[in-house]
Amino acid sequence: MNGAESLVHTLLDGGVDVCFANPGTSEMHFVAALDHIPGMRCVLGLFEGVVSGAADGYGRMTGKPAATLLHLGPGLANASANLHNAKKARSPIVNVVGDHATYHVRYDAPLTSDVRGVARPFSHWVGGAAEARGIAEAGAQAIAAARAHPGQIATLILPADTAWGEADGPAAVPAIAEPEPIDPDALKAAVAALEDGGSAALLYIGGKTLRKEGLALAAAIAAKTGATVMAPTSNGRAERGAGIAAVERVPYVVELALDRLKGFRRAVLVEAKEPVGFFAYPGLPSRILPGETRPDLLAGPEQDGTAALRVLADAVGARVQDAPMPVLAYPDAPDGGALTAQALAQALAAHLPEGAIVVDESVSNGVHFWPMTATCAPHDWLQVTGGSIGIGLPLAAGCAVACPERRVIVLQADGSAMYTPQALWTHAREGLNVTTIILDNSAYAILAGEMTKVGANPGARARSMLTLDEPRLDWLSLAQGMGVPAARATDAASLSKALARSLTMPGPSLIDAVLA
Amino acid sequence: MNGAESLVHTLLDGGVDVCFANPGTSEMHFVAALDHIPGMRCVLGLFEGVVSGAADGYGRMTGKPAATLLHLGPGLANASANLHNAKKARSPIVNVVGDHATYHVRYDAPLTSDVRGVARPFSHWVGGAAEARGIAEAGAQAIAAARAHPGQIATLILPADTAWGEADGPAAVPAIAEPEPIDPDALKAAVAALEDGGSAALLYIGGKTLRKEGLALAAAIAAKTGATVMAPTSNGRAERGAGIAAVERVPYVVELALDRLKGFRRAVLVEAKEPVGFFAYPGLPSRILPGETRPDLLAGPEQDGTAALRVLADAVGARVQDAPMPVLAYPDAPDGGALTAQALAQALAAHLPEGAIVVDESVSNGVHFWPMTATCAPHDWLQVTGGSIGIGLPLAAGCAVACPERRVIVLQADGSAMYTPQALWTHAREGLNVTTIILDNSAYAILAGEMTKVGANPGARARSMLTLDEPRLDWLSLAQGMGVPAARATDAASLSKALARSLTMPGPSLIDAVLA
Repeated sequence: MNGAESLVHTLLDGGVDVCFANPGTSEMHFVAALDHIPGMRCVLGLFEGVVSGAADGYGRMTGKPAATLLHLGPGLANASANLHNAKKARSPIVNVVGDHATYHVRYDAPLTSDVRGVARPFSHWVGGAAEARGIAEAGAQAIAAARAHPGQIATLILPADTAWGEADGPAAVPAIAEPEPIDPDALKAAVAALEDGGSAALLYIGGKTLRKEGLALAAAIAAKTGATVMAPTSNGRAERGAGIAAVERVPYVVELALDRLKGFRRAVLVEAKEPVGFFAYPGLPSRILPGETRPDLLAGPEQDGTAALRVLADAVGARVQDAPMPVLAYPDAPDGGALTAQALAQALAAHLPEGAIVVDESVSNGVHFWPMTATCAPHDWLQVTGGSIGIGLPLAAGCAVACPERRVIVLQADGSAMYTPQALWTHAREGLNVTTIILDNSAYAILAGEMTKVGANPGARARSMLTLDEPRLDWLSLAQGMGVPAARATDAASLSKALARSLTMPGPSLIDAVLA
Repeated sequence: MNGAESLVHTLLDGGVDVCFANPGTSEMHFVAALDHIPGMRCVLGLFEGVVSGAADGYGRMTGKPAATLLHLGPGLANASANLHNAKKARSPIVNVVGDHATYHVRYDAPLTSDVRGVARPFSHWVGGAAEARGIAEAGAQAIAAARAHPGQIATLILPADTAWGEADGPAAVPAIAEPEPIDPDALKAAVAALEDGGSAALLYIGGKTLRKEGLALAAAIAAKTGATVMAPTSNGRAERGAGIAAVERVPYVVELALDRLKGFRRAVLVEAKEPVGFFAYPGLPSRILPGETRPDLLAGPEQDGTAALRVLADAVGARVQDAPMPVLAYPDAPDGGALTAQALAQALAAHLPEGAIVVDESVSNGVHFWPMTATCAPHDWLQVTGGSIGIGLPLAAGCAVACPERRVIVLQADGSAMYTPQALWTHAREGLNVTTIILDNSAYAILAGEMTKVGANPGARARSMLTLDEPRLDWLSLAQGMGVPAARATDAASLSKALARSLTMPGPSLIDAVLA
């Protein structure tokens, strides 16, 4: 058994049975091992950002790591923007990154780079082995690191000679680190904060608390104490819809966030850090809670927030059955009018199937989607957690691989889509049940807004960097070029019809929603 | 004057007047400064790998740096694979990377990452400023670093508050470091090596020696001493054609390289490192010169190799006028037959216009292009220097911006094209004179070959990672989707006709060459 084979067996034994791959020459022994050892589903991405974004989506939906397969430093670099998002989402991923044979690195061949240096900024764990007999053990450690609650990015560097050299066999995954338990003093402080704050208390919850149980617990605590429950602006995955307690998110725009949060004298953080501005602006604070409000940390992002909410609910005497719950209700589909962002949201809500996975990279046109769909049948909502655009289409691929029986709907801003359009090809190749809605405004609209904030009316050179209309991207052609059937909608009724049709079609499709 | 304005003035004063950009919110003050200060040509890329690859092409053709504009750590990460190529090409580039305001970093907002850590592996120089009054000075240092012979990647981190804060004014570029002079002892050793080696001596030249003067000097030295002149497999830019001394490149395939180099007892390196295998393979050496051959370094990659060749020519009594020169000759265009890689090369050679800039990312189908075009009118030949595929289309954009009066022809493997297809949109937006020939074999053919070397016949899982035919990419649609007119050629005659037509059309076009 060679090192590559020992690693593939280790991955499979450790429950890693999907590999999103973009391999190169130095990974051929690993590819050969994947080929002849049964059990791994291999999904090709034509660009590494597709690979890492798909692994993130898979991790968010299954709670367990997929592997990636990447080609040396530059391949890892191409994967890194979406690894950044995955790291902020605290998704579990095991990156397998091929490198030159250990003895070849010193010759500085063209593809030589500091692979560990490339890995470090976007990984929680980086490891490898100096010889084939160590690579299975390193792989087992990578799996354990990835699976540590709530999830970590583990990057395993696989020098070519550790893949082709003789190894002993697979290694067992070591014990997975338990999250730090809830501190009793922190619980006391949280109870005191909620008691003291009353209706001026914020219960700020994130991470895996944004699932049915955590949301119900938080809503029950709020009902009991008078606090308000809020979640971060962007979240890895939130369960929502009828029968799942609703949660408000902190607004993205700093001025709106400051206004919304201005009344909170006390705040309790659960699986979350203190909310801060997405960006800094001249004259605006980084902190968006009132200056004198110092939040109490009940559970940090690495802790089990749902467990924390359980003990907090007990401590304040809140009962889950008292939490207010949204009742199933759908808006009508729009039957006419212009294709505004609001009409698009209405159409989405009208047609949203039960169990849908909504991938939201809607950026500047997204404000209506969340409230409009609040009372639809239960569904999941996934966002861009690290602010690095270009994850929507890849994330959808990973979700669809993870949950083949569910419909994935991508709300995809056009400018953002162009960072990783190659994901459409993976949608087609794997026959994934993904409906992509391109929010087509032919501009980096969010930047045009930011430019205005800077106090400048964009002139010719600035407009040349903020518009996408010369030439206009033709999304029907782009989709067709990658094998995805596509339709264009230019008014609300045609959008509604195209969406309804797409949801009945197995496999991927794309709707170019040309916004009014 | 704010920091952004002081930096834009510093760049313009320092001769940096093209900015390849993919901006975000934290760069809006810099964008505003670019907008209202005249003089900078701003070229938008829809993905950061387009931006960095274009800056590389611009640097290779002009010898001076363009700026890039990138958005925080993830934007820089997306640019990094092509920065790797640019670093290996020793191209001058000034990366301007926006970051959070200095005081905002500690709050770990979603887009926060270790920007310096991201920059380090693919930069020669990394700098920044802690306040607006320092950013012009840091920019001036970045320009000096980028311009140091033969060219460096300088990454300037621009925190948002150093852009919007009050500054004093532009800074002057400090003295640019001179390359280390040629060591007289190294010259003596090189002369002795050539004398001792005779026809068993290799004169191995790289970098900027692969221009008309350096090539003539090397050819004259070889004619005088009996040595053989060779160049690396992949080079940033080589001048060639009628009237420019020809140079052979070391074969990519290690077995072929070992065979070609086996007779050389002595070797002299000029603006080059010792040739080594591109990858390591079981049972094959990393070094590809004979085991006992220890090369003499006359000039390293950071030194002025052309100056070194001048003194070496003097020392051995070689005269440039004695160098053999290719005489102008073109093959006929193929008038029928299958569209093989050889027929494609013949068509290219038959139609290659004088002054063409050939960007060669042909990968597995490229072997015929170089010899077939050896006696065409003078032209430039640019390659993938760092082995990171996905630079062809971006590089072409930068070449066309640098040399608007010349025709750029991209020999672009299909799999590689899909890493950065967004560059086609920049070709269209800027009306660049770029002819893209897609070498369409619907496979990672080079990997299929490597897989066979591993000794395995690819099974279903391996084939799923090595083929691009399910679904087949439709390059006509992809090009049309980004505004580039396209034609498909399925035989040699139609390819030849499409190529001839494309070369007369102003602006970009694409030919999908479906290989037999």
